[in-house]
Amino acid sequence: MIDFYYLSGSPFAWRVWLALEHKGLQYQRINLSFQNGDLKKKSYLMMNPRGKAPVLVDGEVTIYESAVILEYLEDKYPNMGANLLPRDVNTRALSRRLINEIDVYLDSASRRLLMATLFTPKEQWDEEKISRAFEALDVELKRFDEYFSLGFELKILSAVEFSMFPIIALILRIEEQKPDLGFSKSMSPALGAWFTRLETMSLFQTTRPPHWR
Amino acid sequence: MIDFYYLSGSPFAWRVWLALEHKGLQYQRINLSFQNGDLKKKSYLMMNPRGKAPVLVDGEVTIYESAVILEYLEDKYPNMGANLLPRDVNTRALSRRLINEIDVYLDSASRRLLMATLFTPKEQWDEEKISRAFEALDVELKRFDEYFSLGFELKILSAVEFSMFPIIALILRIEEQKPDLGFSKSMSPALGAWFTRLETMSLFQTTRPPHWR
Repeated sequence: MIDFYYLSGSPFAWRVWLALEHKGLQYQRINLSFQNGDLKKKSYLMMNPRGKAPVLVDGEVTIYESAVILEYLEDKYPNMGANLLPRDVNTRALSRRLINEIDVYLDSASRRLLMATLFTPKEQWDEEKISRAFEALDVELKRFDEYFSLGFELKILSAVEFSMFPIIALILRIEEQKPDLGFSKSMSPALGAWFTRLETMSLFQTTRPPHWR
Repeated sequence: MIDFYYLSGSPFAWRVWLALEHKGLQYQRINLSFQNGDLKKKSYLMMNPRGKAPVLVDGEVTIYESAVILEYLEDKYPNMGANLLPRDVNTRALSRRLINEIDVYLDSASRRLLMATLFTPKEQWDEEKISRAFEALDVELKRFDEYFSLGFELKILSAVEFSMFPIIALILRIEEQKPDLGFSKSMSPALGAWFTRLETMSLFQTTRPPHWR
C-alpha cells in the first residue's frame, strides 16, 4: 500500500493525487496540516528534509519532489491504469520539457503572485507589486499557448495536464480573493478552452483541494 | 548526426556535453557566442524561444532544458555507451530527485552568487549581498552531503554527477575572481573528495569550458 502525504491547496500534492487516481493505484491519503506544523515535525523532516508536501512512501522507498514521484509511478507501475507519459520517445521528451518549464519557470512566476496576495495580509497588499507579478506570470503562460491548443488534438491526459492544471486553478483561486486581478479575462482562448475542458472532468473535480470546496 | 548547440561556461551546456561523451554518441558541437548575440537570433529563438543554451537537434526533434535532453538521450539510445540513469527503479527515482533538487534549488542559489559576482562589475560588488548569497548556497550544498559520501560507494557516473559537477566548478571559478570567497575552504570533506575524484577524470577535463582553459 502506498502512503501519500498530502497538503490541501498545494498544486504539487494535487499533481500526485491526480496521477495516483489516473493510474488506478491503491493508496492511503494522509492529510497534513500546515497550521499544526505537520511539515516541520521531526518525523516528517526525516522523510523530506525540505519540509515540503507531497511525500510518497511505497514500501522501502520514500520519494519527494512531485515531478519525480510521477516518473517513479510510471516506472514502477507501467501497466496500471493509464500512462502518465507518452510511450513515443519524441513526444515523451516534449512532455518532459513542458513539465520542466512548469517547475522551473511557471511555478516561480505563480509563486511570486501567490506571495504578494494570499500570503500577505490584505491591508498590506502592494498593488504595483501584484500587478508586476501578474504580468510576469502572463508572459510565462503565453509560452504554453501552443501546447494548450495542441491539447485538444492529443485528446489524452498526461503528467503535463496534472502539473499545469493545479497551478491555473490556484491562480483562479487567488482571483476569487482579488476579483480585479483580471486573470480569467486575460486568459488566452487556448488556455481558457483547455482549462474548461479539464475542469468538467470528474478526475479533476473529485481531487479538488478539500478546503476549497 | 546530432547537432549540439553549446555555450562555453554554461553548466547546463556542460551537462549535455558530458552526457553525449558518456554515451559515446556522434555529434556536432556548434559553439554559440553570448557576446555576438547568438542566443537572441531569430533562427536560435525558433529552436528555443527562451533563448537559452543548450539545444539539441536530433533529426526531426529539437529539445531544450538540459535535464530533459539527458532523459531523451537515455530513452533514444538505451544501448549506447554507459547509462545516464540507473536501471533499478528505486535508485533511478533517487537520482531524478537529486537532479530535480539541483535544478530547482541549487541552481537558483548558485545563480544568485553568480549574479552578485561575475555578472556585476567588480567596483559595484556588494560584500554583504555576496556573503548572504554564499551562505544560502552553502546551506543548499550541505543537503547533498549524503549523496557525495554515497558517490564513492556507488562508483558509477550518472546524470547526477553531470548535473552537479559543472555547478561546483563554476563556483570555484567565481572564487578565482574573488579569492576571499572561502568556498574551497568551507567545502564539506564529502563534497571536496567527490569533486577531486571527478576532476581528475579525462571526461571532465576534456569537456572543460574552452574559454576557461
